[in-house]
Amino acid sequence: MKIKLTKLARTFALVASALQVVHAADPLPSWNDTAPKKAIIAFVEKVTKAGSPDFVPEPERIATFDNDGTLWAEQPMYFQLRFALDRVKALASQHPEWKTKPPFSKLLSTPKEENVAVSEKELMEIIMAAHAGITTEEFNKIVSDWIASAKHPKTGKLYTEMVYQPMLELLAYLRANGFKTFIVSGGGIEFMRPWTEKVYGIPPEQVIGSSGKLKFEMRDGRPVLMKLPEVSFVDDKAGKPVGIQLHIGRRPIAAFGNSDGDLQMLQWTTAGSGARLALIVHHDDAAREWAYDRKSRIGTLDKAWDEAVARGWTVVSMKEDWKRVFPFE
Amino acid sequence: MKIKLTKLARTFALVASALQVVHAADPLPSWNDTAPKKAIIAFVEKVTKAGSPDFVPEPERIATFDNDGTLWAEQPMYFQLRFALDRVKALASQHPEWKTKPPFSKLLSTPKEENVAVSEKELMEIIMAAHAGITTEEFNKIVSDWIASAKHPKTGKLYTEMVYQPMLELLAYLRANGFKTFIVSGGGIEFMRPWTEKVYGIPPEQVIGSSGKLKFEMRDGRPVLMKLPEVSFVDDKAGKPVGIQLHIGRRPIAAFGNSDGDLQMLQWTTAGSGARLALIVHHDDAAREWAYDRKSRIGTLDKAWDEAVARGWTVVSMKEDWKRVFPFE
Repeated sequence: MKIKLTKLARTFALVASALQVVHAADPLPSWNDTAPKKAIIAFVEKVTKAGSPDFVPEPERIATFDNDGTLWAEQPMYFQLRFALDRVKALASQHPEWKTKPPFSKLLSTPKEENVAVSEKELMEIIMAAHAGITTEEFNKIVSDWIASAKHPKTGKLYTEMVYQPMLELLAYLRANGFKTFIVSGGGIEFMRPWTEKVYGIPPEQVIGSSGKLKFEMRDGRPVLMKLPEVSFVDDKAGKPVGIQLHIGRRPIAAFGNSDGDLQMLQWTTAGSGARLALIVHHDDAAREWAYDRKSRIGTLDKAWDEAVARGWTVVSMKEDWKRVFPFE
Repeated sequence: MKIKLTKLARTFALVASALQVVHAADPLPSWNDTAPKKAIIAFVEKVTKAGSPDFVPEPERIATFDNDGTLWAEQPMYFQLRFALDRVKALASQHPEWKTKPPFSKLLSTPKEENVAVSEKELMEIIMAAHAGITTEEFNKIVSDWIASAKHPKTGKLYTEMVYQPMLELLAYLRANGFKTFIVSGGGIEFMRPWTEKVYGIPPEQVIGSSGKLKFEMRDGRPVLMKLPEVSFVDDKAGKPVGIQLHIGRRPIAAFGNSDGDLQMLQWTTAGSGARLALIVHHDDAAREWAYDRKSRIGTLDKAWDEAVARGWTVVSMKEDWKRVFPFE
């Protein structure tokens, strides 16, 4: 019995020291010790400290993240657009009319799709054609297969490898401090869900995105949800606070974005009472990633940048504030 | 040191015995030891037993519950309709035209509203008038005030006291076994969220319901979400699997309802592979609650009952299977 108790005491001591190590270790090792990292840590310590005037109970520790350009890259085109183009090509033989019907004809006749100029309306038409007319289960399978094999044209990496290491650490750090992390993206909700749990640790029920209409029906006696070629919800710009309200039903206390598409989410988040964190990732690292902002066609950062400066939101320079960009570096 | 270790050992022994007590205690004390209770426990033990062929990993343990008639009562009228009627009365002085305009005129001139016959279209008109034109925050406040004070006409209890004790135990039992519990109700999502966390332990982000359109706008420089008088989504019947897919993004393994409005949710849940639990609460206890089913105007249980019998779903007789109905009994 004595030996057992000694063992027990030793185990306790080990556990206690392991806990101390965890506590002492840098939770954000890929972040330089510059202002953004300090702002994040100060915010988290403030809202999690019991008795502090800024303390926030766990259920209210909601953090929302944009995806394209915030958690993973978005150049030279949104990865979902690349997926849609691959689908259009795969489906082309079943749609001979596409050879002469824009925007499909433009896509199918241009070798490098990133140079094809498509309007927003045409883009929606392409995505609808690529994503509708099948069941949610079939679509899930198609996305899962594509995401496991398609490679980025510049890096040759899987798209799920083109995620930002500092943001993965930030997600984990927030969750370790009792936050519930959500994606709030203009991207398709059904396009993200098959892989966000594995890649970001964010389960499908915490993914908010744009969506097409679904229809419940019986097919050979089995219920299915058919994806209809009709837009139901666009989770971008003023749509983001609406998506947050619809899916979460309470206001985030922290929000993370990179473009004007995130402005309203940041406004909505910071308009609540108590401590708030609003953070914008600025793509200014042409060597390790891409450099683009006010004039970019993708991920325009203009109005949101001005408002960030005016209101003291945290702006992250990928070049100055991140030690590492991608996990594979 | 020796004393300390002895204390430690004693504490350990206490904790261990407390855990055994928790394990041995009946998790569903308000359920009689009849078939439904046995089916629930057998299902939970099967899907949580590591190594069992029916084992389901925690993130996939999704359980969905209808609200009206499944978690709380729905007679003599849906509680939300009572709320809407109270709103119409409160707003009547601002709308003199309602005195002569149906359906408002009918409501305002009838002393006992439960006797007013309104069509579904009229009902929607009433709800829209009662719920729109204000911000989500204002609406939240109005609901919170109402739910804290309005009394049920028959029992004189608060509406949140008219919840089913056996279902509260079931929610807690499932969560203690790693399930995530969701509400999937035809009721308004913004009507339920202000109180579901306190009453059922279900946070707002796990509440799915019918919704009106929202619009993000700036009001005196502050962002608000305005409730528009336009239906966005009806989370009933074939809408329930759609709502589940939109909000959860994976199929439940257990679903609980009481009426034909839940049929498609039960079909969708049971059509997945692996162990599934589908349960219907049958209101057959006129003494302790109400007795109604096939011919009822509210909570019609007809087709879903037939399908439950044909497919071996669990049907709960409130009279036979529940020791207690309401917590206040």
